[in-house]
This record gives sequence, C-alpha cells and structure tokens, in this order.
Amino acid sequence: MLSVTILGNNSAVPAFNRHPTSQVVTQDGTNFLVDCGEGTQIQMIKYKIRRGKISHIFISHLHGDHYFGLVGLINTFNLLSHKQELHVFGPAPLQEIIEMQLKVADTAICYPLHFHTIKENAVLVDNEKIKVSCFRTNHRIECYGFLFEEKEGKRKLLIEKIRKLRIPISFYNSLQEGRDYITPKGEVVKNDSVTAPPGRAKKYAFCADTKYDEQLIQHIYGADMIYHETTYLDNMRDKAEARFHTTTRQAAEIARKAMVKKLLIGHFSSKYASLEPFYQETKEGFTNTKLAIEGSTYEVP
Amino acid sequence: MLSVTILGNNSAVPAFNRHPTSQVVTQDGTNFLVDCGEGTQIQMIKYKIRRGKISHIFISHLHGDHYFGLVGLINTFNLLSHKQELHVFGPAPLQEIIEMQLKVADTAICYPLHFHTIKENAVLVDNEKIKVSCFRTNHRIECYGFLFEEKEGKRKLLIEKIRKLRIPISFYNSLQEGRDYITPKGEVVKNDSVTAPPGRAKKYAFCADTKYDEQLIQHIYGADMIYHETTYLDNMRDKAEARFHTTTRQAAEIARKAMVKKLLIGHFSSKYASLEPFYQETKEGFTNTKLAIEGSTYEVP
Repeated sequence: MLSVTILGNNSAVPAFNRHPTSQVVTQDGTNFLVDCGEGTQIQMIKYKIRRGKISHIFISHLHGDHYFGLVGLINTFNLLSHKQELHVFGPAPLQEIIEMQLKVADTAICYPLHFHTIKENAVLVDNEKIKVSCFRTNHRIECYGFLFEEKEGKRKLLIEKIRKLRIPISFYNSLQEGRDYITPKGEVVKNDSVTAPPGRAKKYAFCADTKYDEQLIQHIYGADMIYHETTYLDNMRDKAEARFHTTTRQAAEIARKAMVKKLLIGHFSSKYASLEPFYQETKEGFTNTKLAIEGSTYEVP
Repeated sequence: MLSVTILGNNSAVPAFNRHPTSQVVTQDGTNFLVDCGEGTQIQMIKYKIRRGKISHIFISHLHGDHYFGLVGLINTFNLLSHKQELHVFGPAPLQEIIEMQLKVADTAICYPLHFHTIKENAVLVDNEKIKVSCFRTNHRIECYGFLFEEKEGKRKLLIEKIRKLRIPISFYNSLQEGRDYITPKGEVVKNDSVTAPPGRAKKYAFCADTKYDEQLIQHIYGADMIYHETTYLDNMRDKAEARFHTTTRQAAEIARKAMVKKLLIGHFSSKYASLEPFYQETKEGFTNTKLAIEGSTYEVP
C-alpha cells in the first residue's frame, strides 16, 4: 500500500492554521518525507507520524517554505538519539547550509546522516520494494518533483487452501515467488491454485512548485496519483505565470493530459481563507480531485 | 509599562505542546523579540502578536532551539511587504547563515534589514525610552543574556487641575519636562501642583541558557524581573552542570542573591510532561516565582 499524509498544505507564509509544505509518503511501513517547511517536526507530533520510521527526506528546492524545518528535524533526531541511517536528498547547497548550522552549534550528529545532491532525472532510491526518481519542474529556482514507483510484490498466499493441503511453512517463500509445490508423494500443486497475483504496483508523483508546463507530463504520465500545486485560483493566471506557480484549472489540465487517476492539490496561497473554491474549480477540469488537508492521509488508488 | 509575552518555553525538542525559546518584550508599544526558535512566527499568529511592531530581534546564541525560526520570520516579513527597519542582534556567524539562505532562494529583502554582531557587555539599543545591553552567560557555546532598562519617562499631567487653570495645550510638553507655568498675569504655577512624577523606570533581564554562575549576578542585580532557565529539576544537578544548564533551586538562588523582585522560569526539558514540580521547587527558594507559560504575558512589577 502506498499513501500520502499531508503535514503542510500552504505556500510561503503560514496562515489560517495552514503550514508550509511537507508530506509523508508511506510504503509498506517505510516513511519518506517530502519537503520539510518550518514546523514540520511539530506537525509530526500533532499527527502522530513516527519520526523514527523516516529513513529518507527529499527536498524539492531551496525556497524556505520547503526546507526551513529540516535542520531542526535533523537536530531533533540527534537529541532523541536516533540510530538508523538518514538519507537527505536536495539541490546544492543544502548540505552546506545544514552543516554550517550544525557546526556553529558545536553539534556532532550521532547517527549516519548522508546528503545526496540531486540532479535531473536521477534515480534516488532503488530497492526491492520501491524506486524513487526526480525530475525538473519549471520554477523560479532549481526545483525537482519526485516519482515514487512501487515494485511488483510477491504473490499472495491463499492460506486456507495451503493449510488444507498441509504444505509446510518452509515452502511459503517459494510459493510467494511463484513456484509450484511437489508433495512427498510426488503430486504437483500448481502455484496459482494456492496463491493470488500480487497487488498492482502503484505510482505517485509529487510535482513540487512549478508553473503550468506540459513538459512535466512525460514524467508523471499514467500515475495513479499526483500532487500538483494550485497556489492560486484560476482568475490569477497572470500572477501564477509571473511567480512560477499554477492555478486550479491548469493543474486539472495537467492531470487530464497526463491520464492520471487521482489529483491531490495543495500549496495554497495564504491570501485565501477558504479552500472550497480550489476544490470546485479544479474538479470542473478533473473529477477525481482531492484537497490536500493537513493531517489527512490519501491512499494511492 | 514593560512586559514579557512567552511564545516558547521549552528546551531543545518540541514536546507536550511546548515550543522552543522565544519571547516578546513590550515597552510602550514597541515589541522586541528575544530568541526565535522554530515555529515562532506560527506562535505569533496564534497569540496575536503584531509582527509589524517588531523592530528589534535579539538572538542569545546559535543553538537551533533559539534561532531556527529567524530565517522564516525574516522571509515572511518580506512576503508581507514589511516596510520598517528590522535590527537583528546575535553572535557571529548569524548574519552569514541567514544571508546564505536568502541568497540560494534568490530572495532580495525589500525592507531595511540590519545585522549587528554582538560582543560582551555591548549596548545594543539606547534611545529616550529604553536601553538594551547584553552580557555573557556560561553556556557550552558563546551565549548572551539581554538587559532591558527603561529610561525614566516624562512627568504625568494632572489633566483636571491643568484644565481648571486653563493652561494652553501648547505648554503641556514643557510641563511634562518639569517646568513651571507662568500665567499671562505673571503668576507662577509650580510644576508639581499640576503634574505627578513619572512612573518608575523598570529593569528586566533575560538570562538565556546558562549553567549556575554567580558571575551573572553583577549584570542583573536589583532587576524588577528576570527570566532564568530551569531546564531540569533539582535532582538533575549533575546533568545540568554537564550540559551547561540550571536547575530549579539554582535559579532561585541566583534570583535571591541578585535581589530581584520577580523570577520567571522556563526552557523546560522535553523529558518533563508536567511543569508543576518546577514551580514548587523554585518557589521554595524564591517566593515570587512564575512559570513561563506560552501565550501568557508577565508584567515587570
């Protein structure tokens, strides 16, 4: 299962109890943090995100509302005697900024902390469960979106049938990998009679900050869910263009052209008290739209 | 009137809905911000602090829980089209850290922003209303406390008496400055018959992070109120010593020896869920003790 929990859904300035960008992508018990605006660690406490489960942090770009909470989180991990590895991915000079602040505080990090400077279309994580890659978006400064692609899992055991046939537990792994089972008497139990196909591997794209740009489509085409910014309502297209942001109807258009299944919208300007008009406008262009609400979790369908 | 509003009362890690250090010292309509931990700008919104009234920010030291919210606040002022001057005081290399982050975001600050690197016993602000100076505390890294000393104000007009004698408004300033009034007929109205003495000038000291150190006393002696950290309860004296922090009874001892009138305690370790034991222990050594509670305002008596 792949899901996204929103910690911050606002653009630049905190307002109306909305916070700067941060979200947790969860896959099979692993938490990936995407962006880390100021106050993210406080939002994590509020929404009971298990900080210790975070092994990877991806920073899209170096506008403050996307990373000013990172140094505090790294510091907190240290104070809480975090043990496991933490991998931080972001554009240069993120590492320099963080390390300078740790140095002046005379702070030595007690857990394995690895910085990775990201570049266009790089594969950032690739293991048996998931692949995470990045792609450039069209923003005022160097900015990246992130694509999470699940790997196809193992076949699912039909446990009642397996027990009826008294297949020993030591063969379960082999069944999950698709092999048939041979009984002690030499009878063949066909794999698909005791297992079901694995769940479909899903694809989620975080499109970061960007102006309307169809170049994005090639990276997110056919995704099961995307998060696309809608900083402004559609009557602000000129301002959106000038500030390298996107409006509601523009985000819907990208989602439609990219043939995605579900569109999550966020990064709302602090000038708007109500988010309902964002939902209404976007939905007109793309039906399966959801507002990114802080504390809510969205399953990738 | 001199008062202190607490925005964050916790040490290093946010916990139990307590936030890292920040407080607003208000004198006669001017807001001075002292320390600016992560989330300070969000606390300001919550407690309705008028951000536009902040002209000076004092950063005690470069441990993150005292300044990680600064760059966000400076950035927010910019996005809100702040106009007035902002003076930021802190140890080197605070300016470098902030400017680096603004530079990588391609942010040009649109209001007059002035950094001042602080040194031992420097006078930071000195105008007709207030003097602010700094003093070294005994912490793991370079750290400063701040002393706020009101200037004696003008005499207060006894407005009913003044009206009865038909003294023209144009002479009010002269009366406030202590001069007598001469009527058109040449009669002398003695100043103290129509004015009262000014309110007493008050003194408040923020003692920052520090281990127990009687060297502090010379700087805060006779203050009307001090804020002193009590990171730990008194059974943790060894840990406090090792980490350059203070316990409850130690803070009370400093307050007593420095002959201050009121003691405000804060910077509580995130290991403690309840603050009541801090109050009880400190009060035993110094009766006029108050717990620093977020959102509360404490008048300097």
